[in-house]
Amino acid sequence: MDEVLLSVNLVWVMLGTILVFFMHAGFAMVEAGFTRSKNAVNIIMKNFLTISLGGIIYFFCGYAIMFGDTAGGIIGTSGFALKGVDDLSFFIFQTMFAATGATILSGAVAERTNIFAYVAIIILMTLVVYPVVGHWVWSGQGWLTDLGFVDFAGSTVVHLTGAIAAFVAAVMIGPRLGKYDKNGRVNVITGHSIPLGALGVFLLWFGWFGFNGASTLAADPELVPSVIANTFFAAAAGVVATAFYTKFRYGHIDGSLTLNGALAGLVGITAGAANVSIIGALVIGMIAAPLLVEGVRFLEWKLKVDDPVGAIAVHGICGIWGTLAVGLFDIGGQGLFYGGGFALLGVQAVGVIATIAWVSVSVTAGLFIIKVFIPLRVTVEEEVAGLDVMEHGTPAYEFQDIFKSSAVRGETFAHRLTHFGKTPNNVHEEHV
Amino acid sequence: MDEVLLSVNLVWVMLGTILVFFMHAGFAMVEAGFTRSKNAVNIIMKNFLTISLGGIIYFFCGYAIMFGDTAGGIIGTSGFALKGVDDLSFFIFQTMFAATGATILSGAVAERTNIFAYVAIIILMTLVVYPVVGHWVWSGQGWLTDLGFVDFAGSTVVHLTGAIAAFVAAVMIGPRLGKYDKNGRVNVITGHSIPLGALGVFLLWFGWFGFNGASTLAADPELVPSVIANTFFAAAAGVVATAFYTKFRYGHIDGSLTLNGALAGLVGITAGAANVSIIGALVIGMIAAPLLVEGVRFLEWKLKVDDPVGAIAVHGICGIWGTLAVGLFDIGGQGLFYGGGFALLGVQAVGVIATIAWVSVSVTAGLFIIKVFIPLRVTVEEEVAGLDVMEHGTPAYEFQDIFKSSAVRGETFAHRLTHFGKTPNNVHEEHV
Amino acid sequence: MDEVLLSVNLVWVMLGTILVFFMHAGFAMVEAGFTRSKNAVNIIMKNFLTISLGGIIYFFCGYAIMFGDTAGGIIGTSGFALKGVDDLSFFIFQTMFAATGATILSGAVAERTNIFAYVAIIILMTLVVYPVVGHWVWSGQGWLTDLGFVDFAGSTVVHLTGAIAAFVAAVMIGPRLGKYDKNGRVNVITGHSIPLGALGVFLLWFGWFGFNGASTLAADPELVPSVIANTFFAAAAGVVATAFYTKFRYGHIDGSLTLNGALAGLVGITAGAANVSIIGALVIGMIAAPLLVEGVRFLEWKLKVDDPVGAIAVHGICGIWGTLAVGLFDIGGQGLFYGGGFALLGVQAVGVIATIAWVSVSVTAGLFIIKVFIPLRVTVEEEVAGLDVMEHGTPAYEFQDIFKSSAVRGETFAHRLTHFGKTPNNVHEEHV
Repeated sequence: MDEVLLSVNLVWVMLGTILVFFMHAGFAMVEAGFTRSKNAVNIIMKNFLTISLGGIIYFFCGYAIMFGDTAGGIIGTSGFALKGVDDLSFFIFQTMFAATGATILSGAVAERTNIFAYVAIIILMTLVVYPVVGHWVWSGQGWLTDLGFVDFAGSTVVHLTGAIAAFVAAVMIGPRLGKYDKNGRVNVITGHSIPLGALGVFLLWFGWFGFNGASTLAADPELVPSVIANTFFAAAAGVVATAFYTKFRYGHIDGSLTLNGALAGLVGITAGAANVSIIGALVIGMIAAPLLVEGVRFLEWKLKVDDPVGAIAVHGICGIWGTLAVGLFDIGGQGLFYGGGFALLGVQAVGVIATIAWVSVSVTAGLFIIKVFIPLRVTVEEEVAGLDVMEHGTPAYEFQDIFKSSAVRGETFAHRLTHFGKTPNNVHEEHV
Repeated sequence: MDEVLLSVNLVWVMLGTILVFFMHAGFAMVEAGFTRSKNAVNIIMKNFLTISLGGIIYFFCGYAIMFGDTAGGIIGTSGFALKGVDDLSFFIFQTMFAATGATILSGAVAERTNIFAYVAIIILMTLVVYPVVGHWVWSGQGWLTDLGFVDFAGSTVVHLTGAIAAFVAAVMIGPRLGKYDKNGRVNVITGHSIPLGALGVFLLWFGWFGFNGASTLAADPELVPSVIANTFFAAAAGVVATAFYTKFRYGHIDGSLTLNGALAGLVGITAGAANVSIIGALVIGMIAAPLLVEGVRFLEWKLKVDDPVGAIAVHGICGIWGTLAVGLFDIGGQGLFYGGGFALLGVQAVGVIATIAWVSVSVTAGLFIIKVFIPLRVTVEEEVAGLDVMEHGTPAYEFQDIFKSSAVRGETFAHRLTHFGKTPNNVHEEHV
Repeated sequence: MDEVLLSVNLVWVMLGTILVFFMHAGFAMVEAGFTRSKNAVNIIMKNFLTISLGGIIYFFCGYAIMFGDTAGGIIGTSGFALKGVDDLSFFIFQTMFAATGATILSGAVAERTNIFAYVAIIILMTLVVYPVVGHWVWSGQGWLTDLGFVDFAGSTVVHLTGAIAAFVAAVMIGPRLGKYDKNGRVNVITGHSIPLGALGVFLLWFGWFGFNGASTLAADPELVPSVIANTFFAAAAGVVATAFYTKFRYGHIDGSLTLNGALAGLVGITAGAANVSIIGALVIGMIAAPLLVEGVRFLEWKLKVDDPVGAIAVHGICGIWGTLAVGLFDIGGQGLFYGGGFALLGVQAVGVIATIAWVSVSVTAGLFIIKVFIPLRVTVEEEVAGLDVMEHGTPAYEFQDIFKSSAVRGETFAHRLTHFGKTPNNVHEEHV
């Protein structure tokens, strides 16, 4: 290739790499904002460990399992610790994607999961669960690629994988205390800071332009503007449709659902960002909205799965929708609505089913093994007091301890902790 | 053009696109931080709807009115839903600009505007008000272009347009309850989170490098570094000058004005970023500072226009200043201070006056029509209780409801809402 | 050079410029989040003034002293106000670096430093202290360059310089009231918002990809991916190692130290990002973790230096480590562990010692001079009441004044201020 073109493509992919990294800031803010303040430090620690440990595991093993020489189109087998790998640019871009699956899970199991069990889940996800799906679809040697499966930037590979893992983990770990009462009534537990959550959604949307945009792997003047436009318009349609759908459904434009509407549209367009028209992107985003709203309701009220940030509906239900939608809206001749028949739609369905099967089985098995060594949940005392002071020795906010302990509960912060036999960092005194 | 150069320019314009998108996160944080916590979800919803719905309207109509074949240099007439449009890269870059005018307005009418009236305003702005000004200046066929009007990245096209619309709307909607008492005294209502507002200013400044930088539309090694440097130095001068000016004027370095000082400098340099020297940029930013401080005071104390975030002064007064400043500081031979005479200065003044006339007339007419169908303001009860719980079913913060209702007012959050006949989302319980 | 390649490199360096600018948002959020809410506006003002005034000083003088024609390899002497300077791209990239040293210092002296004394310190740092070190290492004419000193993106030039200045200033200004009691006991004063601090760390990490990545000054397909990967992996290793080290050391995964662990890894890799392998980067980041944790402890408990955000340990101790680590891990033939002997390690040590000597002497002298004209500290009354209401006329948060004054202290906010003879901006009323 032209030397200079190599440099141009490098700049584009490096920009994408940096933007996808930044999505982890978005996940952290979304998950912190949409959960309670007493667990904010904990969820942030989990996000920092996800991108950090996840990236390291992927370097040593995950990348090899995903992109190494194939064993029967099922799994990669070479390139551990990058042995024999030349293209660092592609590797580091992929590394930023790798931890996303685990991050999706972290939101769904927030506020009650033991951090060391979660560390084991990060390893499970980035070592094998995600790389295997990635090998099927993105390695160029996988069985789904051979079938003609299309998943441009990962509605299935990244988002559905993360969501299925999240679903299994949320079921096995169980709901937060107080989420469901004895009679099966649902208590809605609102997030502690909608502005923080909204900032997180903006960071994710911003980063998603790199996630989808640089998945072209080249600064192609034909393809890139279309991918960027589709990414924007699907999210925009998700926001508008969710705002009006919740107005119709609940009588008001719902704050946190509308924010999630942007993410629903983004997850939906991820599989087909390079394959559909702007009109297609708008329809995909629009349909993601009711799927999100009803999906959240179905999971929370019918299935009694407690997912504090709505991750399973956003990434799972809209991930499936986005993957199937390529079979409907592809403008390259394969979309059902563009005269392409049912062939691609069928292949897309096979990919979805296979991914659900693999991820649910492997994560269930993994969690049963982890459970032998590490309890999946924190103790009742820790959950009630909050994971921040109990597991990290510090509250997230200054206002918090003064307010909650002194003003409302008539006891000091230190006293409350001492009650559980812990001495937190921030009341330490020491004579040196 | 050279194929590879096409790719380089693409990367630069896509980077700009993504950065201008991110400015909407900045606007959301600035507007939320500088208003009260009881309306934070509402202002965030408005910002999400602005970029989302505004972008969609612009795709279907606004872009055609702005860049379509001209009718007499006044208005574009072709390219609806991109029919016949080839350059998606330019289109998506322009789309991110389109909603900015409406966003500027949303800050000025925060905390009391009906969200459905605001939705109608978004449509008004992105459908016709902003595209018409854009057609005059940026379509290459407009009457202001023919006169020689210079507005590189939009001190007039974007910022003055938004600010005039904001002024008209703020006057028609009226001040917030409690802003002015019966005797005409002014109550300063401070924002609920200066750190959130400061983050927003940083996000805007960051995004502005794309707003101005990519308005070159090419990665030109001669022009781009100068534009980036001018953008930085005008903002820097705005900050320093506002800090010292408020020290002199009020006896202290004022927090929120100094933050706005960065924006004042940025709005000021937007018209001339490609036309002035760094010294010129420093002077432009420096002079923007007292214009901002006195402008805020004049609007709030003399004209009794309640603009919670100072948007009219920042974008309007400094927008005019920036547009005229090109006539003073242009180094290409037309600046008064560089021997260019008064010609360009006169043209710049014509552009400013024409924009003020068009925007004030069209927005006034538009609001009168909207008013027939939708009340512009929320009810007194909603304004007092806060738009978040009344219109979106959720408070912005966990601390908020506990604190404000139980601790201070001796009533529960649910109780307070029931008083207004509403059942918010977050106290729902349901037996499924 | 090829015309188009010039454009590609321009885009890369401009992206880096914008990202390094954005790091100042990160510093502001880290420093605000890790200090108390009563001083949040003040620290944000200091950060805005640092990048703004620092940039202006650097334009007029600092850049000339750093990159002008050398006087004996010690100091630059030409190019004031860019006279004779052609390359604006390089200049604006360097400008964003220039204020970083002062910003590092601002965190270490937070919550008690007079803002006008701090303004003088900004001038001192960007005018001469930092440019001189930069001249030695990065001008191509400096004595350290001649020795063969390697500091790719500034572990020494930027971070150690900032940290030594921070150390000197923290010692001269003294600890915050209440930090150490009469018996020498240490009180840990926690930050007011860990989520804000965490956001800041993510912003810094994000920006650091530009800080290190664009220090290549070219979009080199061989070098850039390696620099980006090393930057990521050192930070990742810093996070993971700090999490486990604090678990081992304190019994819990410490929230704020683990966040700082990312920065420790980033500072550590900055000198050698272009010189080491990914394995080297992982080891450098891993070793930065205990250095950080023990460094914070040593400074705070043994030396009794009060550094509210841990800046001295992060930027100083890890800056030294990173600089020396190049002598150990360089893969270009000079690293001790790769058979390169002790030569480079010795040169690196010389650079570290020279920088410590120059910065500590010049900053000490500078502070003694500043002290003659401006008190370095605020008054006791101001420090107790908080710098926000006393120096900037506004509290950072809405909750704050209501809560702290009415609910807890039985007095109004206005009352409390009047007590100190001040009328803050936000209780102003005026009849116009």
